[in-house]
This record gives sequence, structure tokens and C-alpha cells, in this order.
Amino acid sequence: MTVFDAIQDRTSYRGSYQNTVIPREDLIKIMEAGLAAPSGCNTQTTSLIAVNDPDLLRRLHEVTGLPAAATAPAMICVLTQAIVAYRDRCYNVQDYSAAIENMLLAAVALGYESCWYEGQITDADAIGRKMADILGVPADYELVCFLPVGVADQPVKRAKKKPFGERAWFNGFQAGDD
Amino acid sequence: MTVFDAIQDRTSYRGSYQNTVIPREDLIKIMEAGLAAPSGCNTQTTSLIAVNDPDLLRRLHEVTGLPAAATAPAMICVLTQAIVAYRDRCYNVQDYSAAIENMLLAAVALGYESCWYEGQITDADAIGRKMADILGVPADYELVCFLPVGVADQPVKRAKKKPFGERAWFNGFQAGDD
Repeated sequence: MTVFDAIQDRTSYRGSYQNTVIPREDLIKIMEAGLAAPSGCNTQTTSLIAVNDPDLLRRLHEVTGLPAAATAPAMICVLTQAIVAYRDRCYNVQDYSAAIENMLLAAVALGYESCWYEGQITDADAIGRKMADILGVPADYELVCFLPVGVADQPVKRAKKKPFGERAWFNGFQAGDD
Repeated sequence: MTVFDAIQDRTSYRGSYQNTVIPREDLIKIMEAGLAAPSGCNTQTTSLIAVNDPDLLRRLHEVTGLPAAATAPAMICVLTQAIVAYRDRCYNVQDYSAAIENMLLAAVALGYESCWYEGQITDADAIGRKMADILGVPADYELVCFLPVGVADQPVKRAKKKPFGERAWFNGFQAGDD
């Protein structure tokens, strides 16, 4: 699948998943894609845990409370470390976001759907920390996101986006789009 | 080019660029890839300005102070708006990072090199605001990153990364990588 097709085909899938076993090699390919993303001053602040053990998935979804995502036969958990990269700044949010986007594209290219679940686990409810505890993640890593991975069991819908000319221009703000 | 090839071929290129004109259609394709990235609750917080006007590029690089990047025949400037997406949270950093990664992959697929310049323009020197002023960007948008786009004129080097097993595991923190 070409880059452009994967980019356009990717959606945030929130339906249920088929009970298809995901080959371990596919999860490795998806994680390799994530780790290949750039990071501020090459600090490589992002780490990943693929979960395909059914009992562990069940325990994790007891805390996520997301029934549709819980049907996915695998998930990838995204860990981040706040490491200073440039002057006094950390770019770990940018780093893991680029890694997540790579993984979403890789998943699409392998025939899977996924969804970027971050806000639901990083807000005041601290679900990400509960997931991290289940996975034995030390306190200096934050579990900020999980990506279910599986074959869609329901129709895949595409988010409606604003027209190109409302968000992109040439040679100046709102100066022209073609 | 496949997704996986583009992901592995992408590098942060900091050399000089050939004086090749970039077709407008290629800049549009790259920006379309950026706008197709997901955003928190579909808030679409990222906007883009492609710059290929030589005089405007010269003026922008007077403030960036990056001689190698200044040889690129085009750049894409990334704008963001802090829009609340979920509860009281903004995910605009995540949004523009995913958009940037898509654009870097699209550039590679079209035969170009680029580099994610963010820290250099968003720190205390406020170079991003000076660039925004040149482009007529209003105060409620922040110019957080620019991507030079062009054909490499020097060898492309790849950043050295840690081995897979130091950053990715299955079913638990550092539990195993295969």
C-alpha cells in the first residue's frame, strides 16, 4: 500500500473488532514503524508494549472501560519519558505523536483498524497509570496512549474534514490555495 | 512507495538542497497528507502555509538563521490553534505532530528530503512569531514548525537508533521482544 493511500484510508475506528488472531510479526512491524519516527535531538523518548495475551487484555480493559476497543485481539501501549532534548525543552509529546501516526499507517497497510485513545486515559481519572501498573511500567515512564489492533467488524466511517482551502494556503495566511 | 519504505527512508536531513523547482502539485500533495492526520475530537487544529516565493523564502530565512535549510526551494510552515477537544484538554501538539509526520512521509515518497524544525523557532527567541508576522498569521495561531522541501544536495545520513528490544516488548515492561 502506498503512503498516500494509507494516509487517506486511516480512520479513527471506534467499532468492535473481529476475533482474528494478529500474527506476532504484524505487531512487530507496527512497532518497528513507531520506533522509526523522528524524536527531538534523537532522544528516542517513546517505548512500546504490545499486548496480545487474552488475560492481560481483559485486565487492561477492566480499567479502560471501553467495550468496543476491548474486542480487539491486540493493543499497543505507548510509553513516554520526559527527556530534555534542546535547551530546557522536552519534545516527548511530539515524539510519541509521530510514532503513533506511523503505527496507525502501518496498521492500515496491514489491513487492520485502530484508534488513538489518549484523552480517555490521561485525564484526571489516571487510567493510564492503572494500565501501567498492570504492565509493570516504572514511575518514570508515562503510559499515554493505547492503540487497539484488529480487523473491523463494523463499517468504517471517515471523519468529515474542512475543505483544503480553509486550512492550507500558499505564500501567506489565507493567501490562496491553488 | 510503500508505507513501510517511506517510514524507514525518512531522515532528518540538515544538508543543503538542490536548486530544483518543486511542482505546486507536490506541495499540495504533501499538505493534503498533513491535513489527513487525525486530531483530538476532530478539532482540526493544524493549518499550513506552503512558501515557494523566492523573496518570501529569503525574508523568512533571514529570521530562521539556518543557512542549509535556506537553500531549499520551498518550505511548509505549520500553524496550530489551542482548541479544547476533550474535557478541558487541548491536543493540538499531538495533532500537528501527526500532521508533520504524514508530511515528512509524503515528501520522502515524492523524492524529497526535509527536517522537522521546531525547537529552533519556538524557544525564547520567538523566531516562529517573526515568521508568522511575515506571513500575516493572526495572533491566535502559533507558527510552531517549518519543513524545508527539496532534493538533497549532500549525502543523506540516518540517525542511529537503539535496538528494538530496548524500546519495545510484549505483554509487559521489558518482558520480551519476540
